[in-house]
Amino acid sequence: MNKASKTAISPTRAEDYPEWYQQVIRHADLAENSPVRGCMVIKPWGYALWENMQRVLDKKFKETGHQNAYFPLFIPMSYLEKEAEHVEGFAKECAVVTHHRLEADPETGGLRPAGPLEEPLIVRPTSETIIGAMYAKWVQSYRDLPILINQWANVVRWEMRTRLFLRTAEFLWQEGHTVHATKEEAIEETYKMLDVYADFAENYMAVPVIKGEKTAGERFPGADITVSIEAMMQDRKALQAGTSHFLGQNFSRAQEIKFQDQNSEISYAWTTSWGVSTRLIGALIMTHSDDDGMVIPPKIAPAHAVILPIYRDETQRAEVLAYCQELKQELSKQAYAGRAIEVELDDRDLRGGEKKWYHVKRGVPLRIEVGPKDMAKDAVFLARRDTGKQESMGRADLLANLLSILDDMQANLLTRAKAMREEFTQEINSEAEFRKYFTPKNADNPEFHGGFAMCYFSSEEEVQPLLDELKVTIRCIPIDDNDTPGICFLTGKPAEKKGVFAKAY
Amino acid sequence: MNKASKTAISPTRAEDYPEWYQQVIRHADLAENSPVRGCMVIKPWGYALWENMQRVLDKKFKETGHQNAYFPLFIPMSYLEKEAEHVEGFAKECAVVTHHRLEADPETGGLRPAGPLEEPLIVRPTSETIIGAMYAKWVQSYRDLPILINQWANVVRWEMRTRLFLRTAEFLWQEGHTVHATKEEAIEETYKMLDVYADFAENYMAVPVIKGEKTAGERFPGADITVSIEAMMQDRKALQAGTSHFLGQNFSRAQEIKFQDQNSEISYAWTTSWGVSTRLIGALIMTHSDDDGMVIPPKIAPAHAVILPIYRDETQRAEVLAYCQELKQELSKQAYAGRAIEVELDDRDLRGGEKKWYHVKRGVPLRIEVGPKDMAKDAVFLARRDTGKQESMGRADLLANLLSILDDMQANLLTRAKAMREEFTQEINSEAEFRKYFTPKNADNPEFHGGFAMCYFSSEEEVQPLLDELKVTIRCIPIDDNDTPGICFLTGKPAEKKGVFAKAY
Ligand SMILES: [Zn+2]
Ligand SMILES: [Zn+2]
Repeated sequence: MNKASKTAISPTRAEDYPEWYQQVIRHADLAENSPVRGCMVIKPWGYALWENMQRVLDKKFKETGHQNAYFPLFIPMSYLEKEAEHVEGFAKECAVVTHHRLEADPETGGLRPAGPLEEPLIVRPTSETIIGAMYAKWVQSYRDLPILINQWANVVRWEMRTRLFLRTAEFLWQEGHTVHATKEEAIEETYKMLDVYADFAENYMAVPVIKGEKTAGERFPGADITVSIEAMMQDRKALQAGTSHFLGQNFSRAQEIKFQDQNSEISYAWTTSWGVSTRLIGALIMTHSDDDGMVIPPKIAPAHAVILPIYRDETQRAEVLAYCQELKQELSKQAYAGRAIEVELDDRDLRGGEKKWYHVKRGVPLRIEVGPKDMAKDAVFLARRDTGKQESMGRADLLANLLSILDDMQANLLTRAKAMREEFTQEINSEAEFRKYFTPKNADNPEFHGGFAMCYFSSEEEVQPLLDELKVTIRCIPIDDNDTPGICFLTGKPAEKKGVFAKAY
Repeated sequence: MNKASKTAISPTRAEDYPEWYQQVIRHADLAENSPVRGCMVIKPWGYALWENMQRVLDKKFKETGHQNAYFPLFIPMSYLEKEAEHVEGFAKECAVVTHHRLEADPETGGLRPAGPLEEPLIVRPTSETIIGAMYAKWVQSYRDLPILINQWANVVRWEMRTRLFLRTAEFLWQEGHTVHATKEEAIEETYKMLDVYADFAENYMAVPVIKGEKTAGERFPGADITVSIEAMMQDRKALQAGTSHFLGQNFSRAQEIKFQDQNSEISYAWTTSWGVSTRLIGALIMTHSDDDGMVIPPKIAPAHAVILPIYRDETQRAEVLAYCQELKQELSKQAYAGRAIEVELDDRDLRGGEKKWYHVKRGVPLRIEVGPKDMAKDAVFLARRDTGKQESMGRADLLANLLSILDDMQANLLTRAKAMREEFTQEINSEAEFRKYFTPKNADNPEFHGGFAMCYFSSEEEVQPLLDELKVTIRCIPIDDNDTPGICFLTGKPAEKKGVFAKAY
């Protein structure tokens, strides 16, 4: 803890939100920048978090009938050219492999690329084209459909301005790619996977999300429909946390994914793709963490609890450690949300305060301190990371109540995040109101302002100039509770649907 | 089943072993070549096998104190130059990224690379250099040691002659990278991880292996000691199935991985690295599979059993299916080797023979056929993939004996593979005998010949010309049972150790 500032993380969220974000990551030891421009190193605590997220998502994908597979890292340059909008979207920021070996450079004494490739290869920014090329071979008859495949992989998009987890040149993700015989089935798949993402975000990450459809200007390059889940961060900006795309027949026409139907007629298939990435970790940090560092919902925390033994001499040490080890064993016998309770026992030779704040900053949900006085009462000193609440609790009570405490923390985090989102969500019906909402009082050093504006709008084109001026985007057109027509906040024309407008990551 | 040849796979192993290998993969639907030269697509059944291998290995890594993390895909060209032997080993076959976008090419109407990078990036062929650069930042004091990290990742080595699983331009693997304060601890780690690999190979993959040390000529570029596990394939060739490297201070000197010890003196650290890859799937195929296709040990099989309902009409269908579904439920309640029993119920509308051979070729350990006559006896028709043994068995007996049947299959596969290796392992003490052993009778179309030759040898240099002539390599110097000195088979000079000599993949 930084005594001067009274918080473990400096600056605080209110002082400098972007820098606070970086410091939370640094102090929780989640990730750091590498010497390779824009590429991050995901450190063990951050990677364990990703593994937990993967495990839950992977199970959901398999439960909805999907299988995993693996496709090549490289995409021939000519493949990108096949789908016109797709290449437009991805050609501007990709890593291009042009040579296949290095040789000594007599001029510099170092190395230089050699062995030029006949056709350059692109490091996949997303795999529609290479996977589609395989699907074109695999799909012959309606009997081969549907194809329901997911891939866990790394992808590369050459971003100029990067930020840990939120926007990096290389990131980890999953990409589902499915092929269907009918349009209806492909659309159903698109929305089904959006529901899987929303369920994961809310019920595991405790991040409330709005499910909605992207406007034409915000769609995935090559998609007919893009739906997304949108979350509100603590600076009131939106973060797109997952997307699912109905690709129509665009890719199947570009790549000849055709099949013979039950009437022996040849049709183009209907495809979808959907993905979430390590960006979710950025969403997690900015939803729950506070001025003392990381806060992680128990369902996906790499460790549920840490035990800190407290003692003054070697005799006490042996007794306290034995007690702690037994407690660790007992806690570990229980399971929460399909995973055995994971407990760390931190017996490092550090001062108590240093050790405590180390785990606070990492976001371990429960901190359990045990000293001789606690032992004498067969009790522990229990601290919750979400509320900061600290109390003495009998060991037997802890064991009996462990799962309900974790459940309470999980629910509390979601409730808190929902309350924040509701506080900063507003229906807006006029341009003046809209301008005021999205304009900070202090233009030089903008305070937290705005949030989600729910606005009827008649046309994306007509509102775009105002959005560009205010740096606001239409996040999505919500799917739920959006059936009553209204009046466009800007033009006064009739409008069918409300959109969610926000500044965004 | 191919009626003409009486085997499900054609050609057989004896007829054309390399082609048999390709056909086993094709018929088991494990993987296929992609349009990207040398890059494979790992299909769902093959990927599920890899996931099972990953799960077991990952648990073993964690049990031995390692954590997972993730490092960048790209390595700056200058990093490769830092370790002289390392660059020598990897520069000749790597993918080089030289540009970061594509632009329209007015000449061709297509695209061309644009945005040249200041420094080319190499797609990692292995990550010692990029991970070492991070470790140099992380390691300051002896308190920061050891670092015990593993990464699951894709790597690229530009191979000219590729073969599914065995040698592909891109492959999946894990690479452990550790840093230690002392030489002794690093060497201990090197051998500890070799033991982990050997244990996994023998007790999960049922692939018997010889643990040994590589000669200087066969070491990893930059290593002081390379140890490996070597397995014998059914064509009697050796396959290196995993390696562990003691890197001495070579990489820590090249990359300045230094620390202050307890006496406040600065020392270079000692590092190791170790890895296994999707090549293990190639080893698995060539150890167990037969002329009817894939054979998979139950501990890592994606499914332990498949149930095939047999019926003649819709009434029977409903009854048989209900029986099969209940059986599937009951089987799935049991767990084998730390994983719930996975059962497929194949109710596709295919002819019985076609369906049976489909699962035989995929290598599902147990095939359970259920028809009205079986049901009447409350029994099933059970077929084991390893022995081909088929028998009627009461449903209750199957449930009671399931785990011991799987254990028996697992043990049988290892015993069979060990017997084969012993049959084709020979101590050889003269050049004439050595030449005869490694020379096929039919030079134009070589029959299976040779195997493992256990030979004393005095010097790698002296035997090398003969080895080159016969296309034989020294696989390793076995660690176990190799303490008695002898006489070099070629020179007659005294020799301290025996080596394993073999033709190899
Ligand atoms: Zn070349
Ligand atoms: Zn540029």
